[in-house]
Amino acid sequence: MNKPHSISIVGAGLVGSLLSIYLARRGYAVTVFDRRYDMRSHMLGGGRSINLALSNRGLRALGEVGLTVQTKLNSVPMKGRLMHDLSGQLTFQPYGKEGEYINSISRSGLNKFLINEAENLGVKFLFEHRCINVDAEKGELTFQQYSETTHQNSDLIIGADGAFSAIRGALQMTDRFEYSQTYIEHGYKELRIPPGPNGEFQLEKEALHIWPRQRFMLIALPNPDATFTCTLFFPFEGDPSFATLETDEDISQFFQKTFPDVVPLMPTLLEDFRDNPTSSLVTIRCYPWVRNKVVLIGDAAHGIVPFFGQGMNAGFEDCRILNQLLDASGDDWEKALPEFVRLRKPDADAIAQLALDNFIEMRDLVADPDFLLRKKIEARLHELYPSQWIPLYSMVTFNDNSRYSEALQTGMRQKQIMDDVMKTPSIETKWTQLDFGEIVSRIKRQK
Amino acid sequence: MNKPHSISIVGAGLVGSLLSIYLARRGYAVTVFDRRYDMRSHMLGGGRSINLALSNRGLRALGEVGLTVQTKLNSVPMKGRLMHDLSGQLTFQPYGKEGEYINSISRSGLNKFLINEAENLGVKFLFEHRCINVDAEKGELTFQQYSETTHQNSDLIIGADGAFSAIRGALQMTDRFEYSQTYIEHGYKELRIPPGPNGEFQLEKEALHIWPRQRFMLIALPNPDATFTCTLFFPFEGDPSFATLETDEDISQFFQKTFPDVVPLMPTLLEDFRDNPTSSLVTIRCYPWVRNKVVLIGDAAHGIVPFFGQGMNAGFEDCRILNQLLDASGDDWEKALPEFVRLRKPDADAIAQLALDNFIEMRDLVADPDFLLRKKIEARLHELYPSQWIPLYSMVTFNDNSRYSEALQTGMRQKQIMDDVMKTPSIETKWTQLDFGEIVSRIKRQK
Repeated sequence: MNKPHSISIVGAGLVGSLLSIYLARRGYAVTVFDRRYDMRSHMLGGGRSINLALSNRGLRALGEVGLTVQTKLNSVPMKGRLMHDLSGQLTFQPYGKEGEYINSISRSGLNKFLINEAENLGVKFLFEHRCINVDAEKGELTFQQYSETTHQNSDLIIGADGAFSAIRGALQMTDRFEYSQTYIEHGYKELRIPPGPNGEFQLEKEALHIWPRQRFMLIALPNPDATFTCTLFFPFEGDPSFATLETDEDISQFFQKTFPDVVPLMPTLLEDFRDNPTSSLVTIRCYPWVRNKVVLIGDAAHGIVPFFGQGMNAGFEDCRILNQLLDASGDDWEKALPEFVRLRKPDADAIAQLALDNFIEMRDLVADPDFLLRKKIEARLHELYPSQWIPLYSMVTFNDNSRYSEALQTGMRQKQIMDDVMKTPSIETKWTQLDFGEIVSRIKRQK
Repeated sequence: MNKPHSISIVGAGLVGSLLSIYLARRGYAVTVFDRRYDMRSHMLGGGRSINLALSNRGLRALGEVGLTVQTKLNSVPMKGRLMHDLSGQLTFQPYGKEGEYINSISRSGLNKFLINEAENLGVKFLFEHRCINVDAEKGELTFQQYSETTHQNSDLIIGADGAFSAIRGALQMTDRFEYSQTYIEHGYKELRIPPGPNGEFQLEKEALHIWPRQRFMLIALPNPDATFTCTLFFPFEGDPSFATLETDEDISQFFQKTFPDVVPLMPTLLEDFRDNPTSSLVTIRCYPWVRNKVVLIGDAAHGIVPFFGQGMNAGFEDCRILNQLLDASGDDWEKALPEFVRLRKPDADAIAQLALDNFIEMRDLVADPDFLLRKKIEARLHELYPSQWIPLYSMVTFNDNSRYSEALQTGMRQKQIMDDVMKTPSIETKWTQLDFGEIVSRIKRQK
């Protein structure tokens, strides 16, 4: 299989569709299978978030296949976090420097766009094909479509079928395949803020809104149609939790008490809360991603929680790195695939950890004045020494030349240094007088 | 399902068979399904060890159902570890006090005995039934026997189908099921020492033999027929490893150099090495063990590596604890099952960790004079203060009133104390003069 003649991708989601574009552009005959209906002709519900944060890593991959402009047209820039406290007071924390922002984009809109682009390049899409068996050695897939069973032989099978990947399920049965699925104690439920009476955004448009409440949080992302998609990240059990909010009365009272400023903006709160599913949040780790004629990519290889806004971006970066390794090896897949796993596995593990850590930052720390001061000091360090001190969030989100694993390491060093800096007496008032050059020099000393 | 009328156990291995005896004695109608042939009429090979170490926890459960005597008749007592160094020098380290020992017993012999006992109590066994689907809510199992598919409805399904449990596979697909499978870098291969020319044991009979070689080891357990079953625990990759022993010449040279005293006793070394499989070593962790009408038990709930000799013993203890909780609740399974998981999960996690730790002890530490001195001091502490200082190995192996999780905790405290004790100047010569009372008192102080 040095150069496969036929490639089957399982999963027509964001990553499978983008990868099919990359591979079609390289001249491969690609077929993409998906167990769901064609989302271009059916409304799809259930289990996936409505919008996503597209940032530099994802944009870079889209750019490589010539698709940046169109995607940006349909997104809303978010320049920072806007925190809402219990009294409705707002605090803004920019994500990066002037001109740096992330983009709220519709999952289904982007997905349909990528499928159309792929079809234009000759990729074949077969929907309503549920994969029921994988023979990794032979390269054979078995699909069920209604009551009919079909087989597909390929030189290479790519599992881009998400966190609950059927392709990975088959690898899991093979010897010495490392695998774990772990859930956090929180689930999530999506809610909605409609446009105002004149079709206007009812909250500041160009921000990611957070109602941080320590053990849990509500967030809201803007959509181009002037709505906001809100997500409540909330424990399944305990008090308060999804388990304790049983009646409409419970829900109303809880929201009135906990998120008072948002309640008037949510006319369908009770219906949304009752009708929308409560979804769980899983982290998937596995190894190796390549076995015989099968390779895993995106969430199928490394499902992560959404708190760093990097799930799609990491998957798109997978595609970019794989493409780069095919360039470097002259399309020798026997060389490119093991190298892909060797390079990407530590980065996938790093972003999984960063995403878990960022939940604590978002739901708790951003409400802490000390934490916001710390961010301010880091922003100043970055301003003064732009290449020597890049805050962790910026490394992950805006600096697509650095690897996730490097960002994690550097972030840990920065945290130690900042822990010490924050012990400076009267830091709240005297922080502008810090010896910023000396602080930056500690990064090197610690290495 | 307060009191189930029909119980299906999947897996006719050691734990499934013993559990069926417990439940038949309580008056339940039990059917046991197994995908394999009936081992009483077929030779079975592949993937399972030939003999096992039966110790107090396992014996206690067998005793409760009246089966201790018969099982002990077919076992060989092992009173300690007998270490073989490179020159063939032997060092003996007793497992416990005088009269404390573990028992080498045939897996298949014990299993057949338990199946026969269960059948005598009215348990129905259906072999060659491969479970291909589980409906946890309905309590329905689907089996394949040759080309025929059958369904079985039960009030309760018990998954006792081992580390690669099909029943657990179904639970894994349900929401918020925590699961991990992790492999160590070593595999194992079984080899054989036949009886001597006059039918005699060719090595000391009443011991577990170890050839500790730091990164890997060979062990040998006696069988009642005067053979020894040897197991090489050895890395899959690296040098040396299973990957580097390719030719007969490689194997011979490696054994001559590494285990010189055992080579003359192994006339079929090369055939055994070539013909016997190289098996991997997995640890399985999952949660919860109970969902709807399904419960997991034994390796299906907590597969562990074999280095503490506790896999079967832990599974038998599962049966004993479940039986005890049924006694306490008056057979109210709705109460007993959640309590079973609550009690046993921390113990399963503890023995999984202890088993991984013990590999390092067996393959490396037991060859270290400091370590053996440490064990001697601990034995003296135990002799002087029998209830206040019980060495970790004894807590796990002989003290079936203590929980694995307690043993792990106490063992960690003991290790800290002994690390300090071993820093005493000239400890090798002066250890008998230690203030043993003071050492024991540190256990309490640390708590």
